[in-house]
Amino acid sequence: MVTNNLKFSEVDIGSIEAYSKRINKEFEDGKIGYFHLPKADNKRDFERVDNFTKDKNFKYLVVIGMGGSSLGTKAVCKLLSDNKDSKKVYFLDNLDVSSIDFILNLVVFEKTLFFIVSKSGTTIETTTIFKYIIKKFDIKDFSKNFLFITDKNSALEKFGKENSVEIFNIPDNVGGRFSVLSSASLIPLKIAGFNVEKLLKGAKHCSDEFFIKGDKRILQKAYHYATHKKANINVLFSYSDKFDHFNEWYVQLWAESIGKKRKYKRFGLTPIGIIGSKDQHSFLQLIMDGVKDKTVTFIKVVESKDDSSLNLSLKYLESSDFTNCLCISEILNYQCDATMQAVLNEGISVDLITIDILDEWHVGYLMYYYMLLTSIVGVMFGINTYDQPGVEIGKTILKTIIKKDRI
Amino acid sequence: MVTNNLKFSEVDIGSIEAYSKRINKEFEDGKIGYFHLPKADNKRDFERVDNFTKDKNFKYLVVIGMGGSSLGTKAVCKLLSDNKDSKKVYFLDNLDVSSIDFILNLVVFEKTLFFIVSKSGTTIETTTIFKYIIKKFDIKDFSKNFLFITDKNSALEKFGKENSVEIFNIPDNVGGRFSVLSSASLIPLKIAGFNVEKLLKGAKHCSDEFFIKGDKRILQKAYHYATHKKANINVLFSYSDKFDHFNEWYVQLWAESIGKKRKYKRFGLTPIGIIGSKDQHSFLQLIMDGVKDKTVTFIKVVESKDDSSLNLSLKYLESSDFTNCLCISEILNYQCDATMQAVLNEGISVDLITIDILDEWHVGYLMYYYMLLTSIVGVMFGINTYDQPGVEIGKTILKTIIKKDRI
Repeated sequence: MVTNNLKFSEVDIGSIEAYSKRINKEFEDGKIGYFHLPKADNKRDFERVDNFTKDKNFKYLVVIGMGGSSLGTKAVCKLLSDNKDSKKVYFLDNLDVSSIDFILNLVVFEKTLFFIVSKSGTTIETTTIFKYIIKKFDIKDFSKNFLFITDKNSALEKFGKENSVEIFNIPDNVGGRFSVLSSASLIPLKIAGFNVEKLLKGAKHCSDEFFIKGDKRILQKAYHYATHKKANINVLFSYSDKFDHFNEWYVQLWAESIGKKRKYKRFGLTPIGIIGSKDQHSFLQLIMDGVKDKTVTFIKVVESKDDSSLNLSLKYLESSDFTNCLCISEILNYQCDATMQAVLNEGISVDLITIDILDEWHVGYLMYYYMLLTSIVGVMFGINTYDQPGVEIGKTILKTIIKKDRI
Repeated sequence: MVTNNLKFSEVDIGSIEAYSKRINKEFEDGKIGYFHLPKADNKRDFERVDNFTKDKNFKYLVVIGMGGSSLGTKAVCKLLSDNKDSKKVYFLDNLDVSSIDFILNLVVFEKTLFFIVSKSGTTIETTTIFKYIIKKFDIKDFSKNFLFITDKNSALEKFGKENSVEIFNIPDNVGGRFSVLSSASLIPLKIAGFNVEKLLKGAKHCSDEFFIKGDKRILQKAYHYATHKKANINVLFSYSDKFDHFNEWYVQLWAESIGKKRKYKRFGLTPIGIIGSKDQHSFLQLIMDGVKDKTVTFIKVVESKDDSSLNLSLKYLESSDFTNCLCISEILNYQCDATMQAVLNEGISVDLITIDILDEWHVGYLMYYYMLLTSIVGVMFGINTYDQPGVEIGKTILKTIIKKDRI
């Protein structure tokens, strides 16, 4: 189970019913694809995956993709990293030659499956890294060690078809940062050994709770974020290292979706992801004593597998003995509770997401929850949540200055 | 060389001269220790290091410490990770049993040196991880594989002395987040094989430029941050994966130093660290089109060692050919320039830090620069930059709720 406990005051539901209708309309008109991915039929794609990987036994899986083409997959892999039956997935997601070489020197080409993931099919970083791999391994045959995930009819698909590459498509109406339940992530995750059907079931549960059962918690939370004008920063305080890439996924989802112009007016809430308990020694002071411009969502995982209870007293260090008998993950959860209480005492907007256990179902639920929250805030601001016009100008300038310097 | 190019308008220097005097007074009165660390005499400490490590040949180095006790060391190690003569350093900096086990299962105890770093000597996470290590490896003798770095007369020092542990002290007047030039980081960095004298020289150069030569750039930048009221968020956009932990170090330094109450008034600027070019596919949209509540500092490294030029054209993917002939790090730097231009075009406060090459000297300079910038903004706000009172209440609540639940 995933529960969300809002610790700020809720509004009369009648006053926000109009938004509920608008998001339901967005859901029903079918233009926004991610809403319906939990019930998409992936059978044919998954059969193709099985046929492709049969007898291949890849030892190394490497995803090459920027932003939404890798962040969702990366988040799921890390959240489920205790899963012993899945393979490790590596990511090349930056134009940094040290990072790229580090991973390419680690893998053995013949035993590696490279996923080239680019919705447009022409992302400059992705193409550059792809070319770098081609040169490094002197590749002539693309049919065995590559798999492309891209839009129908993209340039990358055309290249793939001519070179007998296995290709999967991302639906046109699913944007990159909303694509974690599409082939963009499902294909690599399935090949890595994760139970993607369970991931989709968790997402569907969240979808049904809101769209069918009419649960209004997400609406209340979105409304609080959209109207709490002083708080322009939304902090996600996740208690466990496993959430580090989930935090990055949240930051992309929130920043790219909600940072928008509507005519001449600028909208935007700034996402920040931090990790407990370690960032209690970093960012927490600013939340506690700084300007009250933040909301804070705490995330904790109930289940504690470890048997690390430390019934040990060291001379002079007895001040730590109050945690004896507790295992490390129990101490961590107590730290989450204590910090949340301290933040609440300062009168700051707080909510708590409690996750029973980190498995595919709960991760699917959580990610759908965040995408839905983003969509609703977008509706409340009246912006286009699904485009990213602001990043295009930099691409144009890049071409101009490189061409100028090359002449 | 490190240069800082301010792309916003500067003020008449006479109007901020008073702040210059106050920071110079802070420098001279000796109460703030970090100012003077670049010229501290570390000879005896370094001789002790050499004697301790002689004939030991540790294969694994593991730093255990929270916040300022590990972030500075971690930042330097990653920034200088291309250095072939240094050893890899591992970090245990969170109460996350999966992360802890991952590293402890990787090392061989007999060949490992564990640095227990805690200024107070009683940090709950550090003590807990220390106890976990003791249990896991069933340790009776602490004299060979442990090194403590802590305040004089701390509980940890007392435990160390009784157990023949090699101990180094952090000066009383050096706070955790300002301790990267003290034994807290210098000892592990020296043992890892970095040239710490060169690190200190770079820091001294920055210090001299400001306090002796009277360079006013940092003052101008601090004044802009302290007075540009609409921009309550300071983004550091670092172009290279090597800056990821430096960004974290900056976030702690900035958040914990500047998020403060002064009587009933709250002060605080919110730091955000992002990485180029990958976060062009994430956070950039919010900077470009969102509310103008941010300043952006770009960091790029001039030197490009790699010979990765990709003179390769792929059918259908010719749109990427404009980068042919460039190596990957050159493309990355062009991306930095193009993105900076795009952000400038939106009328957002921007500055650019250019670093010739990532070596100890330049890293020392850069870190001193940021500590000094933090101190000056603190002076301008009239706050205590060096304490962190807001994090204490959570610790008290933690003890209370655990004790209550245990009864």
